[in-house]
Amino acid sequence: MTTLSNTSKVRIEWGDCDPAGIVFYPRYFEIFDAATSALFERALGLTKFQALKTFNFAGYPLARTRARFIRPTRFGDDVTVETTVEFGRASFAIEHRLNLGRVTCVECSETRVWVVHDPAVPGRYKSQLIPDAVRAKFNLR
Amino acid sequence: MTTLSNTSKVRIEWGDCDPAGIVFYPRYFEIFDAATSALFERALGLTKFQALKTFNFAGYPLARTRARFIRPTRFGDDVTVETTVEFGRASFAIEHRLNLGRVTCVECSETRVWVVHDPAVPGRYKSQLIPDAVRAKFNLR
Amino acid sequence: MTTLSNTSKVRIEWGDCDPAGIVFYPRYFEIFDAATSALFERALGLTKFQALKTFNFAGYPLARTRARFIRPTRFGDDVTVETTVEFGRASFAIEHRLNLGRVTCVECSETRVWVVHDPAVPGRYKSQLIPDAVRAKFNLR
Amino acid sequence: MTTLSNTSKVRIEWGDCDPAGIVFYPRYFEIFDAATSALFERALGLTKFQALKTFNFAGYPLARTRARFIRPTRFGDDVTVETTVEFGRASFAIEHRLNLGRVTCVECSETRVWVVHDPAVPGRYKSQLIPDAVRAKFNLR
Repeated sequence: MTTLSNTSKVRIEWGDCDPAGIVFYPRYFEIFDAATSALFERALGLTKFQALKTFNFAGYPLARTRARFIRPTRFGDDVTVETTVEFGRASFAIEHRLNLGRVTCVECSETRVWVVHDPAVPGRYKSQLIPDAVRAKFNLR
Repeated sequence: MTTLSNTSKVRIEWGDCDPAGIVFYPRYFEIFDAATSALFERALGLTKFQALKTFNFAGYPLARTRARFIRPTRFGDDVTVETTVEFGRASFAIEHRLNLGRVTCVECSETRVWVVHDPAVPGRYKSQLIPDAVRAKFNLR
Repeated sequence: MTTLSNTSKVRIEWGDCDPAGIVFYPRYFEIFDAATSALFERALGLTKFQALKTFNFAGYPLARTRARFIRPTRFGDDVTVETTVEFGRASFAIEHRLNLGRVTCVECSETRVWVVHDPAVPGRYKSQLIPDAVRAKFNLR
Repeated sequence: MTTLSNTSKVRIEWGDCDPAGIVFYPRYFEIFDAATSALFERALGLTKFQALKTFNFAGYPLARTRARFIRPTRFGDDVTVETTVEFGRASFAIEHRLNLGRVTCVECSETRVWVVHDPAVPGRYKSQLIPDAVRAKFNLR
């Protein structure tokens, strides 16, 4: 079974870059977080705002992330981010590959957890099984 | 009647600066937002997290802001932000002065509104009179 | 004489929003800075990275900005930013209007200065006349 | 031989948090980048701005980072970041442990590379041996 993937186009902006003139690396994680949202939006046909309501969950915070910075990018660069997912039961693994033209500049692996509001403790979250209805939307026959 | 003011110390970081080596100006607004929180924390004796619960409000979003950038600052600079407030009925005016030593580098004026959750529309906010109990905490005889 | 304007499309992301679920306002200034770059890129046919080299300048830092926040936006919103410019001699005025559908949510006015590296003081900038070659690119007959 | 470590105190701000009310994780990397700078500043007795000039290098960009998010933190939390370093020849490994009270909330491991401007290609960087004078400053008898 194949799973849906997504490619986002991102312009690296002046304000993403540091005094060395290259991307300040926390900005890559902003880009990757948006790329994860974009993959879900493509699969579900819902923005994250809509999906949180429709599937009655509270988000998919990170448990772990790991990135390798291979080549720097700089303002004015138009990069692409290829994002793929592999589902577990209550968590999922995301891979991002950020490319400038044909060159991979950053690789990132995330583990995210599907969480709901904990009814026992206001303001707390707890993990939950990813709904089959969500999972099914990512399947490509 | 005199009103409480506050001075915050802030280190300008590498990641706050752009390829010109000086602060990327949206970072100043992050600094000013934190400085407004710091003034309220000093007056109320509560963090913003605690204050939202104690006074049952939803925040003080900006209606307007205006800033003048007089001199750039750069990473490694230790700046101070002097913050003063003047209360209206449902809104308040904040002035920030960001100094490097004795030199004022940025001046900023904000108008913020005291808001609560709108019971009629989930996810919406509406302005409300600033509680006297809040106002009183800022008064210096 | 009419001057070139530009419209940018921007997706408001989860990470642009604060615990109230609406845009954390410094993110608007990141959006506006990118919108100013986009206007120049459209006029000059050069990214900012290329333009800095071609016209041998160091950027157009802000002298002043002023914004009015009329309605909040939230993650999942697709907004547009209409950006117009009016040139002075060594500075220029920018107007941004951020719209969600037909509703204006934020208005912003900037004054920016055209700067070059100060040959007398390494790491310092000084303002300079905006080159006619730059100015001309914005003219629409 | 023991190596110098450093502990930074950081206030989690409203603007660091997302609509779930907890830190938007790219902000942790901003915190960690500043914590790495703080360790170097403590060891060298120089801000990063001063150190770049004194040791004639261009920075220590990341080659890799890896983080584990154990517990969320939220605005108003005062966290500490314990930062340790282990030097290689042209790179170094950094460990950050972000604690709220006695509870570790985030662990992060970085590999950073010591770089200088590449004289052959303007705007490019290349790795270089970490100067003994830098290394020596981190040694504790």
